[in-house]
Amino acid sequence: MDLEIVAIGNELLLGFTIDTNGAELGQALGAIGVRVTRRTTVGDEPAAIRGAVAEALSRTGAVLTTGGLGPTRDDVSKKVVAELYGWPFRFHDEIWQRLVERFRRMGREPAPANRGQAEVPEGASVLNNRWGTAPGLWLEGSPGLVIMLPGVPHEMRNLLAHEVVPRLAERAGGAVVASKELRTSSIPESTLAGRLEAFEDALAPLSLAYLPGVHGVDLRLTAWNLPRSEAEGLLADAAQRLRSAIGDVVYGEDGADLAAVLVDTLREQRHTVSLGESCTGGLVGARITAVPGSSAVFQGGVVCYSNAAKTALLGVASGLIESTGAVSPEVALALARGARDRFGTTASIGVTGIAGPDGGSVEKPVGTVCFAWLLGEREEQSRYVFPGGREEVRERAAQFALHRLFRMAGAA
Amino acid sequence: MDLEIVAIGNELLLGFTIDTNGAELGQALGAIGVRVTRRTTVGDEPAAIRGAVAEALSRTGAVLTTGGLGPTRDDVSKKVVAELYGWPFRFHDEIWQRLVERFRRMGREPAPANRGQAEVPEGASVLNNRWGTAPGLWLEGSPGLVIMLPGVPHEMRNLLAHEVVPRLAERAGGAVVASKELRTSSIPESTLAGRLEAFEDALAPLSLAYLPGVHGVDLRLTAWNLPRSEAEGLLADAAQRLRSAIGDVVYGEDGADLAAVLVDTLREQRHTVSLGESCTGGLVGARITAVPGSSAVFQGGVVCYSNAAKTALLGVASGLIESTGAVSPEVALALARGARDRFGTTASIGVTGIAGPDGGSVEKPVGTVCFAWLLGEREEQSRYVFPGGREEVRERAAQFALHRLFRMAGAA
Repeated sequence: MDLEIVAIGNELLLGFTIDTNGAELGQALGAIGVRVTRRTTVGDEPAAIRGAVAEALSRTGAVLTTGGLGPTRDDVSKKVVAELYGWPFRFHDEIWQRLVERFRRMGREPAPANRGQAEVPEGASVLNNRWGTAPGLWLEGSPGLVIMLPGVPHEMRNLLAHEVVPRLAERAGGAVVASKELRTSSIPESTLAGRLEAFEDALAPLSLAYLPGVHGVDLRLTAWNLPRSEAEGLLADAAQRLRSAIGDVVYGEDGADLAAVLVDTLREQRHTVSLGESCTGGLVGARITAVPGSSAVFQGGVVCYSNAAKTALLGVASGLIESTGAVSPEVALALARGARDRFGTTASIGVTGIAGPDGGSVEKPVGTVCFAWLLGEREEQSRYVFPGGREEVRERAAQFALHRLFRMAGAA
Repeated sequence: MDLEIVAIGNELLLGFTIDTNGAELGQALGAIGVRVTRRTTVGDEPAAIRGAVAEALSRTGAVLTTGGLGPTRDDVSKKVVAELYGWPFRFHDEIWQRLVERFRRMGREPAPANRGQAEVPEGASVLNNRWGTAPGLWLEGSPGLVIMLPGVPHEMRNLLAHEVVPRLAERAGGAVVASKELRTSSIPESTLAGRLEAFEDALAPLSLAYLPGVHGVDLRLTAWNLPRSEAEGLLADAAQRLRSAIGDVVYGEDGADLAAVLVDTLREQRHTVSLGESCTGGLVGARITAVPGSSAVFQGGVVCYSNAAKTALLGVASGLIESTGAVSPEVALALARGARDRFGTTASIGVTGIAGPDGGSVEKPVGTVCFAWLLGEREEQSRYVFPGGREEVRERAAQFALHRLFRMAGAA
């Protein structure tokens, strides 16, 4: 089945917002055999919205819109689309009750502006939005199918997954575009490419893409327009072959989060973990605690940004800091040991480095980060120089810190 | 002047590439008075490209395309657009020589596939691409103006800045699209809308957009097609009026980062700050330390995820945790005081809450977060229930924690 997307919002045209919804929709719909044939972005003007939706309907008969459903008066898309169907609005008491309840839970009351969010076109089905205040709408009849979703990314994503994809998958059927991703870290793209060179030709009809980012290089295998079972078989087989070549640097598949994978591994091995962070400033802790259920493994961490805090809170000898500098493998080890002892854990990580933009030297340029990892009786240390600006150095360092502990635990 | 964008590429529709070019174009063109009225994304199919470009020309007479100029055979846009003008191709020796030279510098020779990149439509001007192999093209005549740029972001960006913007600025003639953003936090969109209702009509000819996100609601004022000086005057004046109505919740303008604003404010007031974090797990520290130069203010923090760590590292009485539970204003205050005392700072924040997905109760549902802030002699506390999933609750809580300390310091 073919479908067009109409994205609504002045912000998108003005360039103040990057449209990430379009890519998410393309992937999610492609995966169930719905082909997105065009995406049109228009501003918050009724005539432009009407024109774009009507033209798209005339080409494919099926349109998905994002944006223009909020409580403020710059949101007009619901009204414009209802006019295409000739449907009047009615007040939808169930939506209103859910809104009132949602606000009540947060100790508040809906504002008068929210009342309009409970008005829906007469013939439309309501897609219950449990992640925000604007419900999605499903309009089907003459002149075709229009699915309206809010533009806020996490609301769009949840409504898509829970309300739209199940309904569309039924009617799509047939050939799909499917892909599988292997996530690697701590290895440069060119080294990876060298190790995989001999495999690439044998992957046909699948394509292989290298996607480098601050968290490492993702490898995407894609099957194009094949029946689902055939595509999935080919992808599983190819992923297996890639793993046999580079399994040591792979930490997961398809959007896997390294912190989540690490938490799972540590929990299985009955380890607990703590942190002594300097340059990452809490980022490693934030990565770990982003994982639901991480409290079973993670006891805590100390962010000791000043040298005084390194000594006072984690017992790093001030003489050591003076003799090696605050950024040294020895201080990283002292941070890891201090955290382990204070929090009473079986594993720990120490991180200290120079995130920049200032503080670099010839011997220790900006991007230099020293690490220490403790896991049971084992200790490892590393010094690495990361490229990029302050945020990139910190993100790469946090990922590197998590990855080595994962590899130590995996090899255990 | 009005213009439409046509973005070309299967990978954009499939969602494997996020279209960042669209946002860059919107901002760069708006700043010289070129209004982007629509953006259409189509795949690498001749009929789809021809249709999208021809329709756009019929609406505005001016189109900018991105993508479809590379050496591979799925790049067909140049051919399709030349047909709209009825112009044959000719081999452009200068482009070819530049290509040969470019490859020579990298120690290689052009492939046969590159030869097509030196073929250009007879009536087109060439936009010299010093950042890649595919030249940009400027076609002007009947049926209008078509500017063709490569889709690779850094090539697009450079050609836009060096070749396109100077040419378009001349004919756009003065009127610009300009905007100003006020960033707010700790106030719901509907409440904000209520407080600003009386101002909205008086803002004309400016438009006002509400942009909610996990960090709060941004208010964007936009001036459309006005001379630059008039636009800037109106924007400054309107921003002033909005601030007079809701200045207490505004923390900055135009992309300001709350953590950076807070660090500046604390530094000016010679405060130092420390953290006792539970549910945010290091996120508040990560936000603060993302700011270059934050080490002048930030001493450190303790992430005490377990109750034992709260007691051992920040001296929170275990009896208190038993009597009030780990999520209470009292424990938040004990965390803040413990951090302040351990790190010897003049300001501190304590955060404890239930990020979910588990751990909620009727009295303390998921999303409940308790805060305490110390600034000099002042102490404040708050309990708030945030909507959303685990990550959203944590992000919102971190922002809330930073925002109140900023407001306390601002009122000092």
